[in-house]
Amino acid sequence: MTTDVVRLAHGGGGRMQAKLLDEVILPALGIPALAAPDAAVLDAPGGRLAMTTDSFVVRPLFFPGGDIGRLAVHGTINDLAMAGARPLWLTLGLILEEGLPLDDLRRVLASVQAAAEECGVRVVAGDTKVVEAGRGDGVYISTSGVGVVPEGVQITPGAIRPGDVLLASGDLGRHGVAILAARENLALDPPIPSDSASVAGAVAALLAAGVPVRALRDPTRGGAIAALKELADASGCRLVLDDTAIPVRDDVRGACEILGLDPLHSACEGRFLVAVPEPAATRALAILQARPETAGAVAIGRAEAGEPAVIRRLATGVERRVILPAGEQLPRIC
Amino acid sequence: MTTDVVRLAHGGGGRMQAKLLDEVILPALGIPALAAPDAAVLDAPGGRLAMTTDSFVVRPLFFPGGDIGRLAVHGTINDLAMAGARPLWLTLGLILEEGLPLDDLRRVLASVQAAAEECGVRVVAGDTKVVEAGRGDGVYISTSGVGVVPEGVQITPGAIRPGDVLLASGDLGRHGVAILAARENLALDPPIPSDSASVAGAVAALLAAGVPVRALRDPTRGGAIAALKELADASGCRLVLDDTAIPVRDDVRGACEILGLDPLHSACEGRFLVAVPEPAATRALAILQARPETAGAVAIGRAEAGEPAVIRRLATGVERRVILPAGEQLPRIC
Repeated sequence: MTTDVVRLAHGGGGRMQAKLLDEVILPALGIPALAAPDAAVLDAPGGRLAMTTDSFVVRPLFFPGGDIGRLAVHGTINDLAMAGARPLWLTLGLILEEGLPLDDLRRVLASVQAAAEECGVRVVAGDTKVVEAGRGDGVYISTSGVGVVPEGVQITPGAIRPGDVLLASGDLGRHGVAILAARENLALDPPIPSDSASVAGAVAALLAAGVPVRALRDPTRGGAIAALKELADASGCRLVLDDTAIPVRDDVRGACEILGLDPLHSACEGRFLVAVPEPAATRALAILQARPETAGAVAIGRAEAGEPAVIRRLATGVERRVILPAGEQLPRIC
Repeated sequence: MTTDVVRLAHGGGGRMQAKLLDEVILPALGIPALAAPDAAVLDAPGGRLAMTTDSFVVRPLFFPGGDIGRLAVHGTINDLAMAGARPLWLTLGLILEEGLPLDDLRRVLASVQAAAEECGVRVVAGDTKVVEAGRGDGVYISTSGVGVVPEGVQITPGAIRPGDVLLASGDLGRHGVAILAARENLALDPPIPSDSASVAGAVAALLAAGVPVRALRDPTRGGAIAALKELADASGCRLVLDDTAIPVRDDVRGACEILGLDPLHSACEGRFLVAVPEPAATRALAILQARPETAGAVAIGRAEAGEPAVIRRLATGVERRVILPAGEQLPRIC
């Protein structure tokens, strides 16, 4: 590394984060880089379990469409869902800053509980620490989750094959823009709500219907582009996006222009990308479109043989190879 | 609550922490107060699992006898061991402060990995977030753990019965004093090393030998007294300690006098308390004393019928009922 201290860009979901992970964190823990999924799949006595963890440092704590509590539950559930698992149990670690209003804490906890109930998971253990004022920022939440991987389900990012179709479960880039708009006090009317939501039900519906899901990824930090880049690297495929097909809400596109962002680099917290073999694409889309939370699902591209890369085919027909930003674009959006 | 903001004392392991937990956090999550163990025991498809989480905010990051990385691994493993579980998998959530030297991060991660290897557990998933300088303190670590509870093992704090003997697995109060001495730059020579260690092997040895373990508790925040208070409340027993039998190292006792602390309110991170029926006490002690990490195990007291309380029987024969301190005594020791 050329830098010798941690920088904000190390947490932004871009190249610097990938570098920190690949060069410092994973080697230290003896984990090969490409084997680092959102959730680990583990052989337990009675079958396979998925296990995951996430820390949430979003600022502000409360934002249109959600808060840090809902986000923590959804983020953890979605990581489990990306391994094809049925989420069951969560743990909740709180790092509270001295001076946090107890009413804010109550509000966050009520959100955690409501989101957990809606999603059919249980908070089974927790821990609370308090740090001095100026050593935290209100509340940081660490959630871990465990779920059961149904027999026969085997989902790995490397399984994508040339010809597979890439689907997005709904409009992209909304969460990151919602957070930034709230933080920068953009006076949007109506405000852009975060897409924070569980995708576990939609994934379970695909699997239950026997759709041969090849790979799943939730486009969180770094947005759809970072998620697709990981899928491209893991599978060795060239992933070609049809830029005109990518679903982005008009208000999100407008706010992105004001903020100088690309919606495809902006995080979602209630969306997933799924690769399926071409013959199964129409059925998979129909299953998703029949559910309210994934009614906006569309095909956004296709896997091709070739150098692993993410390519955007623009409306003009021009193809542009995308690269990850260094990462300082969107700090603390989750 | 009479206060309307979070205070440091809410994190100190004393009465204020118990109040925050019982009045704010557990009710919000729908968890009954007495049902909040260190680790949850869960019915999974192939048997019972234990699951736990802990956040670590210790200051300084490096201290005699350990660092935040070893502490995180040991703390989580020990919580699982307190449910009688065999620890298997850990997750690691890092909240890094902008400006943290990468070499410090490397050192912490190397400790995590070394401790995990020593303890036979695997770090299976992780997450890294970065916050601005002044919104964290170097590194905060959240670890979660999952283990398997062997068939037939059923350990709950409420199971203590009058007549049971209370054992301590070694000298008490050392970790808290080690941290405070390091933080206050007490020039102790040699320095007092933290007792940070896994107790999972010792617990497994007791269970494998068929010792009818009634209850286990690791005396972390709040020290032995807080742990015993929880056992007393959960079991409805009066727990009477023989003050002259309680193992405290001379250097710890000396530093406690300088720092104005009671060693029994000071945390351990490599000790446990165990209640066993009287006829099994001698054998349990022999099993513990035969292992290097629990060679200092001794009987420290006994459960009696009566009002749930923790009683210290002093050298003079006088009995003193102990109460928890409010909690501001030892912030950020784990």
